[in-house]
Amino acid sequence: GSYTTSSQQPSKLLFRQLFEKESATYTYLLADASHPEKLALLVDPVDKTVDRDLALVKDLGLKLIYAINTHVHADHVTGTGLIKTKVPGVKSIISKASDAKADLVVEPGDKICFGDLFLEVRATPGHTLGCVTYVTGDGPSQPQPRMAFTGDALLIRGCGRTDFQGGSSQQLYKSVHSQIFTLPKDTLVYPAHDYKGFTVSTVGEEMLFNARLTKDEEAFKNIMANLNLSYPKMMDVAVPANMVCGLQEVESKPC
Amino acid sequence: GSYTTSSQQPSKLLFRQLFEKESATYTYLLADASHPEKLALLVDPVDKTVDRDLALVKDLGLKLIYAINTHVHADHVTGTGLIKTKVPGVKSIISKASDAKADLVVEPGDKICFGDLFLEVRATPGHTLGCVTYVTGDGPSQPQPRMAFTGDALLIRGCGRTDFQGGSSQQLYKSVHSQIFTLPKDTLVYPAHDYKGFTVSTVGEEMLFNARLTKDEEAFKNIMANLNLSYPKMMDVAVPANMVCGLQEVESKPC
Ligand SMILES: [Fe+2]
Ligand SMILES: [Fe+2]
Repeated sequence: GSYTTSSQQPSKLLFRQLFEKESATYTYLLADASHPEKLALLVDPVDKTVDRDLALVKDLGLKLIYAINTHVHADHVTGTGLIKTKVPGVKSIISKASDAKADLVVEPGDKICFGDLFLEVRATPGHTLGCVTYVTGDGPSQPQPRMAFTGDALLIRGCGRTDFQGGSSQQLYKSVHSQIFTLPKDTLVYPAHDYKGFTVSTVGEEMLFNARLTKDEEAFKNIMANLNLSYPKMMDVAVPANMVCGLQEVESKPC
Repeated sequence: GSYTTSSQQPSKLLFRQLFEKESATYTYLLADASHPEKLALLVDPVDKTVDRDLALVKDLGLKLIYAINTHVHADHVTGTGLIKTKVPGVKSIISKASDAKADLVVEPGDKICFGDLFLEVRATPGHTLGCVTYVTGDGPSQPQPRMAFTGDALLIRGCGRTDFQGGSSQQLYKSVHSQIFTLPKDTLVYPAHDYKGFTVSTVGEEMLFNARLTKDEEAFKNIMANLNLSYPKMMDVAVPANMVCGLQEVESKPC
C-alpha cells in the first residue's frame, strides 16, 4: 500500500533520522553499509548538533564524504562548515540555483553517489529560488520504497513559506506537483522540519491529506499570501552564514 | 550489518514514529497494512498528542484496537484513557507486574496480535517494577529486522533512572542483558524517550556504545546511584493517572 513505510528493501542503505529541537530541523544520515568504506552523507546538518552527528558517524564506522543542504536555510546555521573543519575531505554540496558557495554545486538531474547508492537532484523552487529535493535512486539495487528529502518544499501536511529568499507560491505549487507528486505513491517523504512530531509521510498520503497542496492553485496562492508569519529570528545570521555553507571565514575561495 | 536500519522486510507492517516534545516521548503506531481492516495499535500514546495520533490513524484508514503502555510513566499522562473515550472499542494494555488497571494485562511471553502481526512481551523491570519491552514477532511473515519497543529500560546510549517506582539498577542491568541484548544484533531499538534527537538504534549498536549498559554491573550500579536527578515535575499527577491508564474517573471497574 502507498502508506506502508516498511517493505521490501533489497538495498544495504543505512539510514538515520536526527532531530535538532530548537529549529525543529531533521538531519538525515545515509550510508552504503555494504561498501567496504561505508561511504556516507548528511543532509541538512545543523551547527548545534554537529558533534552528535559526527559521534554517530564514528560509532557506525562510516566514512563521511558529503554534507549536503536542500537550500539556504533561514532558521538555523548549517553544520556543513563546522563538519568540514572537523572531518577533512568532506565536501559541501548545494544547488547551483541557490547561488551559495560550496565545494560542489549540483543541478537538476545530477546524481550524488555514495558507494553503490545515489541521490538524484530535483529542482523544487518556491520556498526559496534554489530549493532542491534529493531523491534516492530508481532501480533494483536502490532502496525500495524510494525516499525524498524534500527540504521545506513539502512538509508533512504542510509546506515552507514563500514570502522571502526568492520564494513564490505559484512556483512552489508547480514544483511539488511536477517533481514530488509524480514520484511513486509509496515514496517516503522526509522533510527538513516538523513542528508537530511527525517523522515521515509518503507521497500518496500528502497527495490526499496535505492541508495546502491538495487545494487548487488559486486557493493555494491565497493560503500562502495570508499566513501572516513573523520575520524569522535567525534569518539575518543564518542566511549570510549559509550562503557560504557555514564557513563564514571563507573569502575568495569556495568553501 | 547490525547497524542497517532499512533492509529486507517481507512484512506489510505500517510503522510510524511520533514525538511529543514537552516530555520528549516517542509514540509508535503499528498496523497490519495488508489486513482487510488494517488493525493497528499505539505504543505509549501521550494525552497531549492524542488528536494528532487519531487524525493520522483516520487518514491512513486504520482500525485502532489497542493502546499499550510500556510502563506506568512518571513524566507524562498516557493518552490511553482519552483514546478510549474517543474511539469506542479500543482496549488499553499494560503489564500485570505494573499493578495498573487496564482492559488487558499482559505477562512475559504473551503475544499481542494485530492482524497477522504480533508483539511479544518481555519483562524488563528495573526502571519500574512493571516495565516491559514489546518486540515484534520472530518468523518469516513478521518484520525483518525485528523491532524492540524498550520503554525506559533501554534508551539510545542510555537508560531510564532507577530511583523510584520500584526501580532497581541491579534488576535493570539484568533485564537489558538477558532480555534485550540477547535479541538479534540488527533488532531496531525504539525507546520511549530521546533527549538528543536520536530516533532509533540497534541492539548491536547499544551493546557496543551504550554509555551505561556496556559497563560491568558494579560500575553500572555506581553510575545509577550517583545521577543526582531531581524529582520529576509531573510525577504526582502522572503516576496516579497512569495507574488507571489515564481514566481518572474510573472507580471500581477497570478502565
Ligand atoms: Fe527553509
Ligand atoms: Fe518512565
